[in-house]
Amino acid sequence: MTSNLFAGLPSTVTVDEQFATFLQRPGLRIERIVSTGQASPEGFWYDQDEGEWVTLLQGEAKLRFADETDARHLRAGDCLDIAAHRKHRVDWTAPDQVTVWLTVFYSATGITPGPTTPVTPIPA
Amino acid sequence: MTSNLFAGLPSTVTVDEQFATFLQRPGLRIERIVSTGQASPEGFWYDQDEGEWVTLLQGEAKLRFADETDARHLRAGDCLDIAAHRKHRVDWTAPDQVTVWLTVFYSATGITPGPTTPVTPIPA
Repeated sequence: MTSNLFAGLPSTVTVDEQFATFLQRPGLRIERIVSTGQASPEGFWYDQDEGEWVTLLQGEAKLRFADETDARHLRAGDCLDIAAHRKHRVDWTAPDQVTVWLTVFYSATGITPGPTTPVTPIPA
Repeated sequence: MTSNLFAGLPSTVTVDEQFATFLQRPGLRIERIVSTGQASPEGFWYDQDEGEWVTLLQGEAKLRFADETDARHLRAGDCLDIAAHRKHRVDWTAPDQVTVWLTVFYSATGITPGPTTPVTPIPA
């Protein structure tokens, strides 16, 4: 099936961020996050077990790492990798735009195939 | 480091497609592919050991699966998952546009840690 990353976007500001999963595989999850002005709660830091590669498809956001002084101002196409357990937060997203993040979460410790995934034997 | 998915795009048609790797981890590779009119060679089918989730960020392309009659006409934001060994080819990319693909290649047998990746022991 062909989906579209921009399908079903809100036309106005919404109370909560919206999450949609585009792909889920062992050790891998591709998600769209839609922000309309939301930010991380005051004093909150993400501290994730997974690595996260993230890009901003549209809109604007300020992403801050605990180990950096200034937030990074992200615009369309900007992308970066967030290592597992590197503390970060979203300081700001544009209040007057629909900001679309595309995130690829991946296992930082390696994943073995789960029971729902067919496993192809590796030739010796 | 913050990169940008649209950085360094060619302003005109190029002879070959251009490839750039944005992230490489065990069992995972995120690549940008830039096409300016290229297509798969006549009669050629990709038959990949990896799964590939792909989205078109800009431009237009026609992607055909061996098990489908018609090519899928992809436009900006369209995305789909190509299972490992599902034969497919690119029938066409827009000759007058710079078409940007974002691809996430992932191990079909699970993401396993490689020698370059620190492995955190999983608590018993």
